[in-house]
Amino acid sequence: DIVDHLLGDCTGQDQATDLQGKTILITAGPTREPLDPVRYISNHSSGKMGYAMAAAAADAGANVVLVSGPVSVRPPAGVDVMRVETAQQMLDAVMQHVKAADIFIATAAVADYKAKVLENNKIKKKGDELTLTFVKNPDILKEVAALPDAPFAVGFAAESQNLAHYAKSKLEKKKLAMVAANDITTSGLGFNSDYNALHVFWENGDKQLGPAPKTQLARELLSLIDERYKNKSSN
Amino acid sequence: DIVDHLLGDCTGQDQATDLQGKTILITAGPTREPLDPVRYISNHSSGKMGYAMAAAAADAGANVVLVSGPVSVRPPAGVDVMRVETAQQMLDAVMQHVKAADIFIATAAVADYKAKVLENNKIKKKGDELTLTFVKNPDILKEVAALPDAPFAVGFAAESQNLAHYAKSKLEKKKLAMVAANDITTSGLGFNSDYNALHVFWENGDKQLGPAPKTQLARELLSLIDERYKNKSSN
Repeated sequence: DIVDHLLGDCTGQDQATDLQGKTILITAGPTREPLDPVRYISNHSSGKMGYAMAAAAADAGANVVLVSGPVSVRPPAGVDVMRVETAQQMLDAVMQHVKAADIFIATAAVADYKAKVLENNKIKKKGDELTLTFVKNPDILKEVAALPDAPFAVGFAAESQNLAHYAKSKLEKKKLAMVAANDITTSGLGFNSDYNALHVFWENGDKQLGPAPKTQLARELLSLIDERYKNKSSN
Repeated sequence: DIVDHLLGDCTGQDQATDLQGKTILITAGPTREPLDPVRYISNHSSGKMGYAMAAAAADAGANVVLVSGPVSVRPPAGVDVMRVETAQQMLDAVMQHVKAADIFIATAAVADYKAKVLENNKIKKKGDELTLTFVKNPDILKEVAALPDAPFAVGFAAESQNLAHYAKSKLEKKKLAMVAANDITTSGLGFNSDYNALHVFWENGDKQLGPAPKTQLARELLSLIDERYKNKSSN
């Protein structure tokens, strides 16, 4: 209610979110897909949102496992961190922990494609043009959501256009419980910023959160996830 | 001489290196070449070696300008830092400061290629394969060394094979004063490590430095650069 919400804002904690005894698996940061020993393809992602989600979940009493790509953010206290580089490594780490997870929150900006051929030696500059072929990476979120005993799966969507359309389509196609979408064209928000704004979608509803500092946004999103999760579990 | 060298090792400073009144321009870190608003191609580079070179040069009394790609290393005290993302931005920043520079040290792992077409909107996953065409980036080191009144130009070479061959070839082709090469296949050194080993080449000689912490290696390399620079200036 409003009082709780105001209290939450004032104390810096959302009093309503209690995840004691729950296990939350979170992915964060980018993945890096090597082309050769020095070059890689990656996505912009500071990991800040995922790390803020992990901190908020730990504060709410959850057991938190954070599978993180290469970032320079410090891991929050009380969180198990597994470090990975590639999408395949992230998938392996997620699959190792997903059975114990009640909620899965995929904030990581996983590279959609990896090099078709990984060169063992540094590719030398030759011609004026270089053509590389990429193949699809595993879709971690889709694989998790498709598991027989899947956890409550929350996806993120960073979009530059048609945000609501792509977010809803992701929700349906991957059979997710929720999708939190952000518009990457809004300056000063997202990526390396400490601020973000999210438009969250679920089966029969949506809610806008922020713009707000990522730490506050993480608490608000976690509270919304908790609400939807309990709603779904009680059905 | 030996006494100076030992003293240098003991005090943690190389007493012989005095760059008072000299301006040293250093590039560090990777560059990132965008494919679309979320994806980019880049090189492994923590920036640690370049930042250590900048710190050592500032300690030796030089005016230091550091042009840095995206890294999470803290800039050393007393150094002017210009932050860039792409190779083109790095070239622009370097050209802005090169006229005042006596010595140019290019530690940056500049991406050799950039996307031929920069997509304004996020490339959507479609087919199983994605083919991208890349075109050559400007060669910053080569352009600097080819300037009419070029500074004493020092390049770095990260190689996975035929190290001496590629380093000497880089020295000649780009008309550099020195090349510091490292073998990226040696585990525990280079990239994100705090340690490295270098094999340094110049017109009529070479010297191996390390394995050593990058901060110490930076002082030793700077001392060698200073020695070769003074030797060349007095000819």
